[in-house]
Amino acid sequence: MRQRNKPWADEFIQENEQLIIPNPKEFKGKWKELFNNENPIHIEVGTGKGQFIIGMAKQYPEVNFIGIELAKSVMVSAAQKVIKSEQSNILLLNVNAEDLREMFAPDEVEGIYLNFSDPWPKNRHEKRRLTYRSFLEQYKEILVPSGILQFKTDNRGLFEYSLVSFSNFDMKLQEVNLDLHAIDDPENVMTEYEEKFSSKGQVIYRCRAIF
Amino acid sequence: MRQRNKPWADEFIQENEQLIIPNPKEFKGKWKELFNNENPIHIEVGTGKGQFIIGMAKQYPEVNFIGIELAKSVMVSAAQKVIKSEQSNILLLNVNAEDLREMFAPDEVEGIYLNFSDPWPKNRHEKRRLTYRSFLEQYKEILVPSGILQFKTDNRGLFEYSLVSFSNFDMKLQEVNLDLHAIDDPENVMTEYEEKFSSKGQVIYRCRAIF
Ligand SMILES: C[S@@+](CC[C@H](N)C(=O)[O-])C[C@H]1O[C@@H](n2cnc3c(N)ncnc32)[C@H](O)[C@@H]1O
Ligand SMILES: C[S@@+](CC[C@H](N)C(=O)[O-])C[C@H]1O[C@@H](n2cnc3c(N)ncnc32)[C@H](O)[C@@H]1O
Repeated sequence: MRQRNKPWADEFIQENEQLIIPNPKEFKGKWKELFNNENPIHIEVGTGKGQFIIGMAKQYPEVNFIGIELAKSVMVSAAQKVIKSEQSNILLLNVNAEDLREMFAPDEVEGIYLNFSDPWPKNRHEKRRLTYRSFLEQYKEILVPSGILQFKTDNRGLFEYSLVSFSNFDMKLQEVNLDLHAIDDPENVMTEYEEKFSSKGQVIYRCRAIF
Repeated sequence: MRQRNKPWADEFIQENEQLIIPNPKEFKGKWKELFNNENPIHIEVGTGKGQFIIGMAKQYPEVNFIGIELAKSVMVSAAQKVIKSEQSNILLLNVNAEDLREMFAPDEVEGIYLNFSDPWPKNRHEKRRLTYRSFLEQYKEILVPSGILQFKTDNRGLFEYSLVSFSNFDMKLQEVNLDLHAIDDPENVMTEYEEKFSSKGQVIYRCRAIF
């Protein structure tokens, strides 16, 4: 995602520390306290500008959503939209998702969403793909046993790779959809990238799997 | 596959019993004797008119191929092509593949190919799909532990279904290709259906999995 220079981003993030949690490791095992209810917690890794997580939060008010986004300037856009939406079941983390186990206790999460994750097409960058086995290990630990990993992308190579990676990690596929927009799924919440690529006629892939 | 009326088909099949084996259950555990060598045995289920199995037999002369095709008139076309090809590493069975375990001993087969299998799109016909779990049980029993099941199709619904079915059967995906003809795979042997559908611009899917 292209990052425009936003010098005020740091300041904005500090001023909104009730939404963009500055020290997420402190809340490991305590996210429900922060949300102040017992609702299940779902996380999105690579939230981008927040369209998906806000749409999901509206559609599922009895779920708490945590959006994780590394890029500061993108995070600011997401946060602005969350504030405007007035949804109280969203929190944001401006961190790298590579140490999720330091931020979430085992079984603390009931759903994980990966949307249009960076494809890292070169073989030597395999370890950076969010569906590489080291990430799957993390997801498995923080998810409840029946917890679902949902993955959407337009990137054929990454989707092919991910299905093989899930399979070799002994995950069970519950759904594979090789042309999401060919069916009418009223529950599908589009991401920014999904809108962009599907409007260009590209096929969108989706799968759901459990560990 | 459309079946033209071929009244001479029965006669042709009887006359070519060295190629179209009339009593395959008798050869359970003894196929290598029939081929008269120790080469590995690969089978294709739903061989159609034989283009794939003949191409494979040419490409891999040190593999023995057995083509299974239910429809008599289609089998005759395949047999005629095999005779013309003069390939000696092909045998054909004009039977329903629903009792493979009666025709092949455990671990007798090293590879299984499913090409453009009938999709049976209605839910109530799920059990007829060649990737339904009852078929997978058969394949697993007759395949050596490292034996590969390769599946190609243009049918999105059947491919989606099959990936989920493989996963739930604890199979491990080794490869998933969601647009086979977008890459240049010099080892790919096209089937009749593959030529027809890809020339119409349809995407061809392929996967390889082990049990
Ligand atoms: C291609 S964008 C997709 C954005 C959004 N999910 C969508 O579908 O429109 C990928 C996003 O993931 C973020 N990202 C990539 N790796 C990450 C990581 N390890 N931790 C957190 N965010 C990450 C990037 O900064 C970028 O905003
Ligand atoms: C759609 S055609 C594909 C033919 C060929 N594999 C190709 O790709 O061009 C499917 C073939 O599988 C055969 N078939 C379907 N079910 C079968 C079964 N249970 N046992 C043997 N053959 C079967 C059909 O008769 C038909 O010829």
